[in-house]
Amino acid sequence: LPKATAARLASVVQHEWGEGLIRSWNDAGWIGLARGVADRLGSLVGAPAGTVAVGDSTSVNLFKVLSVAADLQRRDGHRGSVILSERSNFPTDLYIAESVAQHSGLTLRLVDHHELPAALDGDVAVVLWTHVHYRSGRMLPMAAINRAAHAQGTLVVWDLAHSAGAVPVTLCGAADPVDDADFAVGCGYKYLNGGPGAPAFAWAHPRHLDRITREDIRQPLSGWLGHAAPFAFEPTYRPAEGIERFTCGTPSILALTALDCGIQTLLEATPLGGMAAIRRKSETLTQLLMDLVAARCGGWGLQRITPAEAKDRGSQASWAHPHGYEVMQALIERGVIGDFRAGLGRASGDDALGILRLGCAPLYLRHTDIWDAVETLREVLDTGLWRDPRYGRRSAVT
Amino acid sequence: LPKATAARLASVVQHEWGEGLIRSWNDAGWIGLARGVADRLGSLVGAPAGTVAVGDSTSVNLFKVLSVAADLQRRDGHRGSVILSERSNFPTDLYIAESVAQHSGLTLRLVDHHELPAALDGDVAVVLWTHVHYRSGRMLPMAAINRAAHAQGTLVVWDLAHSAGAVPVTLCGAADPVDDADFAVGCGYKYLNGGPGAPAFAWAHPRHLDRITREDIRQPLSGWLGHAAPFAFEPTYRPAEGIERFTCGTPSILALTALDCGIQTLLEATPLGGMAAIRRKSETLTQLLMDLVAARCGGWGLQRITPAEAKDRGSQASWAHPHGYEVMQALIERGVIGDFRAGLGRASGDDALGILRLGCAPLYLRHTDIWDAVETLREVLDTGLWRDPRYGRRSAVT
Repeated sequence: LPKATAARLASVVQHEWGEGLIRSWNDAGWIGLARGVADRLGSLVGAPAGTVAVGDSTSVNLFKVLSVAADLQRRDGHRGSVILSERSNFPTDLYIAESVAQHSGLTLRLVDHHELPAALDGDVAVVLWTHVHYRSGRMLPMAAINRAAHAQGTLVVWDLAHSAGAVPVTLCGAADPVDDADFAVGCGYKYLNGGPGAPAFAWAHPRHLDRITREDIRQPLSGWLGHAAPFAFEPTYRPAEGIERFTCGTPSILALTALDCGIQTLLEATPLGGMAAIRRKSETLTQLLMDLVAARCGGWGLQRITPAEAKDRGSQASWAHPHGYEVMQALIERGVIGDFRAGLGRASGDDALGILRLGCAPLYLRHTDIWDAVETLREVLDTGLWRDPRYGRRSAVT
Repeated sequence: LPKATAARLASVVQHEWGEGLIRSWNDAGWIGLARGVADRLGSLVGAPAGTVAVGDSTSVNLFKVLSVAADLQRRDGHRGSVILSERSNFPTDLYIAESVAQHSGLTLRLVDHHELPAALDGDVAVVLWTHVHYRSGRMLPMAAINRAAHAQGTLVVWDLAHSAGAVPVTLCGAADPVDDADFAVGCGYKYLNGGPGAPAFAWAHPRHLDRITREDIRQPLSGWLGHAAPFAFEPTYRPAEGIERFTCGTPSILALTALDCGIQTLLEATPLGGMAAIRRKSETLTQLLMDLVAARCGGWGLQRITPAEAKDRGSQASWAHPHGYEVMQALIERGVIGDFRAGLGRASGDDALGILRLGCAPLYLRHTDIWDAVETLREVLDTGLWRDPRYGRRSAVT
């Protein structure tokens, strides 16, 4: 929770909502808030102003951009009939891709990450990949994958849920445009610190936005705030130009305000070096965490699944463990708050174990916090504290 | 703004988010919040527990239920190829219907409200109608329209944006089930007092929910929280039973909390007579407003467009006026905060004038407020205050 958030939200509630009432759509700038937040967010992921839309959930935004990507390929007569994704991708991405594939007459094909280069053949119309994997923390080389996909005429949709605000991302502007991405989505409640269920975002490359406007290509969720003139109340949908047509209904001003506080907190680090400085700290935190776990917690069956090289990982580290759930409960009770993620089974290209995931949020974690966390983990494992029945498995959420 | 909202939101931010962190998904009940809010909301619109889903925007929810309604009709071999709606319906409903029609192979047909009975022929697969019209405040006889539609095998989707929390609604449970509605959506930021851009809701009749579960009928926005086991992280979408499959991504906990405060404030009126008592006050407020405007503001070209009979209107009253925009600006500056809505033109079955809309929110407006508002309107008209250049037209929002 950024320090600024509580006060700013309280002011929005008490003054802008409670006193300004509907006047605040104009007077407090509510109607333009999403645009401002979107542009500020865009600056953190290498997206030019006017190419990001903020609002709705990641799932809803993915439905929009995947639908448009499939439509573009259909119009271009791309021979591919496949949406390609990772078998162990975050499930909502796969579920939405399943639906878009069905509605677009395509097939969803799932492979393991190491199969990606070989799987990128001419059958693939669209690749949907998560930049930093939610379980392993593995980060993929975005530009190289874009280039390989584009060689087949394939479009690439990136999910930046675990990237935005954690690692530098350059969605577009590469020296060679073939290295640029095509579409992206991401969420506001991980490293952007927008709060529980914060609004998500959608991005499209300027070259696609130009074409989408020119050829009147529409995303299916044609809500009124994506209309060219929402307040003209025209009976027929006439989409706004560019990224604005990816907007749908009225956004929650409270949720947008909290997200904006998270993003502004990140931007205030810009004079101190921006995402590059944040990334440097993220790397040393994560490296320290992995080194200390190896040195201090050996012999207890922890199996690191996060890549060893900094260039191959995001800002988290994960370990498989046969009793990962109980260990995480014991850690959380001691103030080391990570996630447990159930095993996916071999059918998902995953080991059968559950994993312990620890995020190294560089904005507010210190290296000394990492030391303390690892000592707590060592204590939980060494003393068998996790065997306490009260850490037994219940239904785990988030 | 309900008095409870600021304190509860501050507590959620400071304690549940700031101290509880992700533990609050379990410990503070975030994961079950949407279900609780949905059931409480359902009790205000005559919907049984477990039949309402809360989250996303009205537009997104309409996309879900219209898609399912069209799918049901296709499965049943209904011969209709038309989605029927009102020409002057709130535009986002028409824009979404346009998209669903296109994706479902149907045609969107628009008529005026007085043409509705005759237009309900066997060509109509789905009727999409707003119960209380956003401009005129006209309220339609829901049960009679359901009955007429069902006689043709037509399904009815209701938009309750201006009904929920303002007028009694009985979506289901009629003595004769043929009078029940089929689907509904609505927003949380009008009479539910959920705040700017509050989450919206979707409802489906239990008979459809049973069938949807039994026949594995899916809505297109297959996000993870609509999965039967969201935290099992299965690679394939397997929808939850009943209304839960209309849930998509992770909801904003801040926005849901504020909506819950609004709904709970309404529910606290239940021991005092519930929606029936709220409706009685709404009727006398609206009647007083219309009577006083007729008595005190004659001769200035105000043309009432809200039906005279209480049974035919919701909780608002509207007048067309050639200088409606300027008049409303002058009113707002004097603390009488209503809406201006631009004219739709004759092509929309509307007069060419803009309208002044005044909502009579029965929970917090008093009869003396109506007197004061009308005296202010009289003063603005009598003295020509609205001619001041600073009230001249800019782009008007919401």
